[in-house]
Amino acid sequence: MKHKSITSTIRTPFNRLDIKNGRVELVHGSGGRASAQLIEMLFKTHFDNDLLAQNNDQALFAVDAGRLVMTTDSYVVSPLFFPGGDIGSLAVHGTVNDLAMGGAVPLYLSVAFILEEGLALKVLEKIVISMARAATEAGVKIITGDTKVVERGKGDGVYISSTGIGRVPSAVNFSGDQAQPGDAIILSGSLGDHGIAIMSHRENLQFETQIVSDSASLADLVACMIEVVPGIRCLRDPTRGGLATTLNELAQQSRVGMLIHENTLPIKPQVSAACELLGLDPLYVANEGKLVCICDPNDARKLLSVMRQHPLGQDASIIGRVLADEHAFVQMETLLGGYRMVDWLSGEQLPRIC
Amino acid sequence: MKHKSITSTIRTPFNRLDIKNGRVELVHGSGGRASAQLIEMLFKTHFDNDLLAQNNDQALFAVDAGRLVMTTDSYVVSPLFFPGGDIGSLAVHGTVNDLAMGGAVPLYLSVAFILEEGLALKVLEKIVISMARAATEAGVKIITGDTKVVERGKGDGVYISSTGIGRVPSAVNFSGDQAQPGDAIILSGSLGDHGIAIMSHRENLQFETQIVSDSASLADLVACMIEVVPGIRCLRDPTRGGLATTLNELAQQSRVGMLIHENTLPIKPQVSAACELLGLDPLYVANEGKLVCICDPNDARKLLSVMRQHPLGQDASIIGRVLADEHAFVQMETLLGGYRMVDWLSGEQLPRIC
Repeated sequence: MKHKSITSTIRTPFNRLDIKNGRVELVHGSGGRASAQLIEMLFKTHFDNDLLAQNNDQALFAVDAGRLVMTTDSYVVSPLFFPGGDIGSLAVHGTVNDLAMGGAVPLYLSVAFILEEGLALKVLEKIVISMARAATEAGVKIITGDTKVVERGKGDGVYISSTGIGRVPSAVNFSGDQAQPGDAIILSGSLGDHGIAIMSHRENLQFETQIVSDSASLADLVACMIEVVPGIRCLRDPTRGGLATTLNELAQQSRVGMLIHENTLPIKPQVSAACELLGLDPLYVANEGKLVCICDPNDARKLLSVMRQHPLGQDASIIGRVLADEHAFVQMETLLGGYRMVDWLSGEQLPRIC
Repeated sequence: MKHKSITSTIRTPFNRLDIKNGRVELVHGSGGRASAQLIEMLFKTHFDNDLLAQNNDQALFAVDAGRLVMTTDSYVVSPLFFPGGDIGSLAVHGTVNDLAMGGAVPLYLSVAFILEEGLALKVLEKIVISMARAATEAGVKIITGDTKVVERGKGDGVYISSTGIGRVPSAVNFSGDQAQPGDAIILSGSLGDHGIAIMSHRENLQFETQIVSDSASLADLVACMIEVVPGIRCLRDPTRGGLATTLNELAQQSRVGMLIHENTLPIKPQVSAACELLGLDPLYVANEGKLVCICDPNDARKLLSVMRQHPLGQDASIIGRVLADEHAFVQMETLLGGYRMVDWLSGEQLPRIC
């Protein structure tokens, strides 16, 4: 049974859930009466919109002729709640951002929950409310969903898979294979905030200033950027694997090299300190509210100016440029003026970061 | 990192996976080099298509003006392999069927994997190959995906979330709220095969004839049905919760009653025997390749005839009719000529059946 409302003024066959004291049981995944209760009282109540209210196993919507994008991600972040967000807001932001990186206006999300038996219903409610708020803020509707329950010890509270679709404006044509030698590389803000917020929380590290995840929807920032420069070459969000991996992906896809300058990379002092303590390189740490933009050098100043006027792009800077390089190497000029290779992430730096 | 290809004739920074002897490690979910290997050698190889080959974090495609449907499901079935299918084919069939039940021509799927550390790569490969085959057979492309890895004991081998989108032909307008008193209720074939195949396998029950899951794509059957009767009122597949729950959902949504006749319900003898042994009621057992169709009584014979000509509808029969009933009760005339209420599934009959 999907997330659909089954209400009736005539007969209401569903008892109320005890959200305050109750826990997820296997029966909530049965497809029967208990599943319907869960859907009615949690998902339908908080995700409420006209498409979800169709109450079918699929949501129907009209589209104009044009181009759409589709993207999906599972979220297994641990812990479920962290400074600056939780698995629910992260699942919305992450999927919305992958739509935005395709130049799309996010439209609709689907969400599928894998719940572990024993999860407190009030924890699930908190996550659902957080998702609903994040979706509203990002201007997307959660239009269909699904819930499964697995036995204790076969999950870890909640896993969420969210899939999004968005509409691409006709002037937009972003792709990772369009970087050209001479192009500018812009980063929208500070590096490593999400990964270090999670790790500090896990390791119980205390800093004078709390490190907060940057998890946020980038859709509005991208819309502002497209308005001034529709012809951006590519956008990508440096999530798992961090900036280093994202740049290597783009270099590989476009068959170009890249040179970035360490002194242009915005890194917060407390993030830098935590990285040192944890033995992590901020170039490889996940971000959840940042983007890399590759553009014609003549468009760079215009983009930088509009990005800096946006709350999520205040610290945007040009961090380097694209080079002709058949080896697709990414290099960095260090603070000391030397050069080092910036390779793909080759180990597991931070498990279950998103 | 999403399921995208990162190949280059210039530089191939990815070593080969040892699929024969290797296991899933946390590093395969890192977003770095090991993730890229997994994507390249497993997902990209087997799901290969032009949209996946765009290699971005989202897949871009053109649409005509019209109506689309979107649906999502997670699959947590245990065991991963069962007579008649596996979690991979099930994830494709289940999502394709939810599109087809909306009257849609299935177009694209996304798939998100949550892998447990330690899973044998050859098991994962087998599942991926099965998904690829099921997608080809159903005429859909798997165009984007994601992989996460959780620690041992935080998952159960593989969980898959698949999301589909499909295009609804202009003459089609199915919805669960359109059943009208007097309408015919058609069932496409035998009840309980999927649930009982899983349970027999779990419980190690032996029968003279092996019970095989009915897991199959219903998209072609639905296309044949729409061709003769575009004005079907509603279709739904009786999965978790079985026929009883599906009929109650539709009755509730349309605010009508239903009467079905036990002597018209096709149930295989070995399924019936297994149900008796396991203490299960076949009305509540999950199906994964069956549909319930509600239609104008004048269309019923025409639909039945076209369904019976299709391999997946050979045993189709009219099982009852829709009644005016403000209580939205579903009733069954039993083999003995009495009447019993057919209520929603109220407990957990079969955990992790899909």
